[in-house]
Amino acid sequence: MFKRVLIAALVSGALSSPALAQSAADLDPQIELTAKNLMRYAMSDEIGLDFVEGLTTEIGQRLAGSEAEARARDWAVAELTELGFDAVRIEPFEIPFWSRKSESVSVVSPSPQPLIATALGGSAATPEGGVTGQVVRFESLSELRAAPISRIDGKIVFIDERMIKTMDGSGYGMAVRKRSQCAQSAADKGALACLIRSVGTQPHRMPHTGIMARDGAEGAGAVAAVSGPDADQLTRLLARGPVTVSVDIQTEIRTNAPSGNVIAELTGTDLADEIVLIGCHLDSWDLGTGALDDGAGCGIVVGAAMLIADLPERPRRTIRVVLYGAEEVGLFGATAYAHQHGDDLDKHVLASESDFGAGPIWRFQTRFGEAALPYARKIQRLLMPLGVTPADNRATGGPDIGVLARSGVPVVSPGQNGMDYFDYHHTPDDTFDKIKPDEFRQNIAVYAAFTYIAAESGWDFRKQPDPVAAGTE
Amino acid sequence: MFKRVLIAALVSGALSSPALAQSAADLDPQIELTAKNLMRYAMSDEIGLDFVEGLTTEIGQRLAGSEAEARARDWAVAELTELGFDAVRIEPFEIPFWSRKSESVSVVSPSPQPLIATALGGSAATPEGGVTGQVVRFESLSELRAAPISRIDGKIVFIDERMIKTMDGSGYGMAVRKRSQCAQSAADKGALACLIRSVGTQPHRMPHTGIMARDGAEGAGAVAAVSGPDADQLTRLLARGPVTVSVDIQTEIRTNAPSGNVIAELTGTDLADEIVLIGCHLDSWDLGTGALDDGAGCGIVVGAAMLIADLPERPRRTIRVVLYGAEEVGLFGATAYAHQHGDDLDKHVLASESDFGAGPIWRFQTRFGEAALPYARKIQRLLMPLGVTPADNRATGGPDIGVLARSGVPVVSPGQNGMDYFDYHHTPDDTFDKIKPDEFRQNIAVYAAFTYIAAESGWDFRKQPDPVAAGTE
Repeated sequence: MFKRVLIAALVSGALSSPALAQSAADLDPQIELTAKNLMRYAMSDEIGLDFVEGLTTEIGQRLAGSEAEARARDWAVAELTELGFDAVRIEPFEIPFWSRKSESVSVVSPSPQPLIATALGGSAATPEGGVTGQVVRFESLSELRAAPISRIDGKIVFIDERMIKTMDGSGYGMAVRKRSQCAQSAADKGALACLIRSVGTQPHRMPHTGIMARDGAEGAGAVAAVSGPDADQLTRLLARGPVTVSVDIQTEIRTNAPSGNVIAELTGTDLADEIVLIGCHLDSWDLGTGALDDGAGCGIVVGAAMLIADLPERPRRTIRVVLYGAEEVGLFGATAYAHQHGDDLDKHVLASESDFGAGPIWRFQTRFGEAALPYARKIQRLLMPLGVTPADNRATGGPDIGVLARSGVPVVSPGQNGMDYFDYHHTPDDTFDKIKPDEFRQNIAVYAAFTYIAAESGWDFRKQPDPVAAGTE
Repeated sequence: MFKRVLIAALVSGALSSPALAQSAADLDPQIELTAKNLMRYAMSDEIGLDFVEGLTTEIGQRLAGSEAEARARDWAVAELTELGFDAVRIEPFEIPFWSRKSESVSVVSPSPQPLIATALGGSAATPEGGVTGQVVRFESLSELRAAPISRIDGKIVFIDERMIKTMDGSGYGMAVRKRSQCAQSAADKGALACLIRSVGTQPHRMPHTGIMARDGAEGAGAVAAVSGPDADQLTRLLARGPVTVSVDIQTEIRTNAPSGNVIAELTGTDLADEIVLIGCHLDSWDLGTGALDDGAGCGIVVGAAMLIADLPERPRRTIRVVLYGAEEVGLFGATAYAHQHGDDLDKHVLASESDFGAGPIWRFQTRFGEAALPYARKIQRLLMPLGVTPADNRATGGPDIGVLARSGVPVVSPGQNGMDYFDYHHTPDDTFDKIKPDEFRQNIAVYAAFTYIAAESGWDFRKQPDPVAAGTE
């Protein structure tokens, strides 16, 4: 049966013909062979790993809107040009800028001691010299919300909610609610400042930063994350009696800071105006060097594209690599991209972003038109030898891709094992040494394979069932 | 045979008589039974764990000579008095005081970025505003020593030597040579400052501090440890070309700062002037809360002594718990103790210190007189069910005990598994949550058993073979 369909496909030569789209065997054997070769080549990738090593070493942290992020854009343009990409360019935009200048949190009484803490992105500054007040502890954001003003007014709020460790990162959503809403909820009830137990899953004194709200710039109140062991310490002190802490956060804010998306392409052949977009984000938080978040993602998509660039012939469609700017502070790069390419989104045949570290991909989700699901199954079967489980059709495509997905662009989400991701994410520990090369290269294998197939097959991932045909069955 | 010797011992009642000392079975069965019970009780210890929790929570860091160390002494006196110890007191002494005021290390060129670093204890201050110079990297201290002045003069030295991870901590000695001698070796050749790869074995951005030289106070040059990932970063940058860094270390130094040993006793009965000393050190480095180093040690010896205190009768000899001050900065407490008790050292029948974290004890070394080795074997056999291997007669007894051992006081070293100790030691991560209660309690079991036996048996651990008897054999 398999053989007959395959022969039919070869004889007809109509590999992308609608008539055969429902068949799982409609991939040109040459494309399949090339995809398998790409998966093999990926295992000895050097370019992708060098890219993230270079970015994190030669630039380091790349806070959105900062001079460092600007240097990273120039660095990336130079590297991608050197690698031979086409149409390498920066698409600039402006963002509100927030940066910490200094921060300190310490117990004043009953026993003076410093706590290791980091201001959250967008934290308001305290008055110079800080604020000092009694700590009132809540086990959750909802408990804070339910509390009367009298418990909070003039106090320093402490939300001691732990994050749950899961493979798909699903514990992060709840953790982020606490991060994004503490300042406002606390300020509404007259609190002097808010402290949260650091979002993250590791037992080290490595506080996790991250944006408070998705509009960049300064938020409703002063808010800092204290590391897990410091949250434990505060809780033990509170179990003994009243605790007074001081919180001193000084910030720098600016409007209209420069950011931008860096774009590089492999121009297609006969379907050059059709775009397969693979992305990552170039900015990072300021505490680490943004290796897992998201230098790795950039290394993965650049490494995958370069494996394809090294093939004897370019694929039919254009492969566009997008290194988004200012993701961390509110998806500004994604918004700018959608704005700048709004007239062109129907030409985006597939999009995906790598932004979850460098752990191995364990599942492959899609968001395709219903009649394009056989393409999903074909790609998923091809990826299974890499340890990738076929998954559902509810992919989001990644943070910067969401806006495209909502506009109808088909997306895939190669899901990485993120069990350890939140041990490092947004902390000083997000550095190059945390990337395991073998796992990183497995990611490149997956990206190279599906990107190549999408660019070369001519498949229409938007495809819906034919209403007439469906009606006549 | 066993039975006959035992009966002989019981009949004679002379359990500590020289004639029976060579026999492995000369321990009063009641003492042995009590020791075994203590080992059992230790597994549900609360007092020892509460002691270290309280010390690290209510005081936090306890830098030698600081106001925090003074608070810790008062805290310990109150706690030990409350627990019912006898003769609770502080034996004060003075030390040179060193403290960091501020420190920053950053790459100036080719790409500005901060490095996570910590000044070593005793580092000289840099001029205000710091020093800036080109980095010259050495793979070892010996390589630095062999280098010509021309390579070093006006530069910033970087020793990038890695520490080896071992169960008994033997990798630490080499690491400490680099820590203690970099400043002098670098300064001798005109270096502006010295950076070392942090002593320690963990992959986090957690630089390890520690004293440069064993004389407290300020040393020959400015010296800081950069964390492992930052040392990697510096090495990667240097592989690309010249690197300039700035090092700014500001310190506070004082002469004649107050420190002291805290002493608490369980007064013995008929041999009250004979002392079994179990110790720990109360001071800590300033970055963490001194939980593993050495709050745990204090919890272990206090917990062990309290199990003995809870027996229906006090042992014959006095058990003296010594919480040494100012260990980290030069064993000042040990020296003060030896000075203050110099006339009395022959009355110290046994001494031991717990100062290697809270990992399980895996071997038991002694340093006894040759004729007292059967006592070692008896104790070792008793401890084996706790997973403790009998070991040699070359114990040092612990850092603060060395001076006693050199004066002829018999010592034991219950050797802890320190495989993970240098993941936390002297870093901000040395906090209470790193103590595993079950492993901690196994330590209490060991300390309670040998301390009780030493205090109750009347054994002479100094005992040498009888020269006459030996000669006539």
